[in-house]
Amino acid sequence: MRILFHEELTFISDQLVAMSRLSGRALERATTALLEADLALAEQVISEDEQIDAIRRDLESRAIDVLARQQPVATDLRQLVTALRMSSDLERAGDLARHVAKLARMRYPEVAVPEHMREVFTRMSPLAQEMIVRAGEIVAAQDADGAVELQLRDDAMDRYHREVFRLVLEADPQVETQVAIDTTLLSRYLERFADHAVSVAIRVVFLVTGTWHDELVPSTGAGPVHRAEP
Amino acid sequence: MRILFHEELTFISDQLVAMSRLSGRALERATTALLEADLALAEQVISEDEQIDAIRRDLESRAIDVLARQQPVATDLRQLVTALRMSSDLERAGDLARHVAKLARMRYPEVAVPEHMREVFTRMSPLAQEMIVRAGEIVAAQDADGAVELQLRDDAMDRYHREVFRLVLEADPQVETQVAIDTTLLSRYLERFADHAVSVAIRVVFLVTGTWHDELVPSTGAGPVHRAEP
Repeated sequence: MRILFHEELTFISDQLVAMSRLSGRALERATTALLEADLALAEQVISEDEQIDAIRRDLESRAIDVLARQQPVATDLRQLVTALRMSSDLERAGDLARHVAKLARMRYPEVAVPEHMREVFTRMSPLAQEMIVRAGEIVAAQDADGAVELQLRDDAMDRYHREVFRLVLEADPQVETQVAIDTTLLSRYLERFADHAVSVAIRVVFLVTGTWHDELVPSTGAGPVHRAEP
Repeated sequence: MRILFHEELTFISDQLVAMSRLSGRALERATTALLEADLALAEQVISEDEQIDAIRRDLESRAIDVLARQQPVATDLRQLVTALRMSSDLERAGDLARHVAKLARMRYPEVAVPEHMREVFTRMSPLAQEMIVRAGEIVAAQDADGAVELQLRDDAMDRYHREVFRLVLEADPQVETQVAIDTTLLSRYLERFADHAVSVAIRVVFLVTGTWHDELVPSTGAGPVHRAEP
């Protein structure tokens, strides 16, 4: 019985890794679609998001099935419940990649990101992609130390987020208001994407140590990070 | 055994109702703090968010405890797993109210929302508050019809969200870029808050009917809704 249960957990862990890769790839393509005004690629990201959602639904059904058949003990239950929360984070990361693709589609054939802001997005998005893929690896390896390291990388995301606001506010000549709106939302999507990566990874600390490290728990959204913030 | 289990489920449902009220009240206060530049109220919302987070953590522990002790059947499991997802939505709604309060604090003693945009926010925020409280009632009553009605109200939220962008883009004289950034984020927080209300309510449909109504499932974030969108 317990061997079966652990096979199930391994399967679920593999699916979480798959979700992390799919959402990382979705963000990569969405960013290319955004910066190159590639409509076909944007459409592809939007339609393929359903794959990630389907894995999440399947994981939930399997988890309920395992719970009903195998009467797992408390530690195993915590693993299952935590895996479900991770899958919600990863599904949501996929949704955010889709939002980037939708914005690319909405502005087509124009490019939503002005020339002087391309660089920050070409750094911010790959970092977010790396973070989600790394979160998947951390889940697979139950690597609590890796989770703590990953959280530190989120500081770089917050710096990019502030940098976007700085570039919008200090542009000379002033950016169009539409550009300010679009880049504010894009930066917010990327920042939240990385938050979900941290959230997935930090849940591994919980599983491995059995306690929450409150100081490590992400605030699930840094919220407004503006130039005016200290 | 099953009586005990159903008492547990009732308790969990009561806690979800409490979370919905707390997050509704948090958004009400955060909005007042925002529009009246009330720093003390903003600080209160920020510090009291921990109450909502604590209920979520407690619910998760109880759910795991129930699962370990009572070996519920598959239908009961679906109730428990769904309740956990609802609690995540409500916790996240509380986080978004906290984000509004943080933005109010950041701009203090100034008011982040300019005069000509006060009205849209004084309509949008109360609607979001009503929606989350209503979601709690729908959970308590297992009211699938109410859930479908609630989802229709989300259309009004989307209209307000577009109205914010319209007001930012068409302001004459042009709004400051900082105002464009702030109001874009605020509108996004409110729109997401309402999405979580819909998400909680729609899960009731799932519980009552045993199937997902795909056409009813919110997209968990309408994504970019701009003037340029059809």
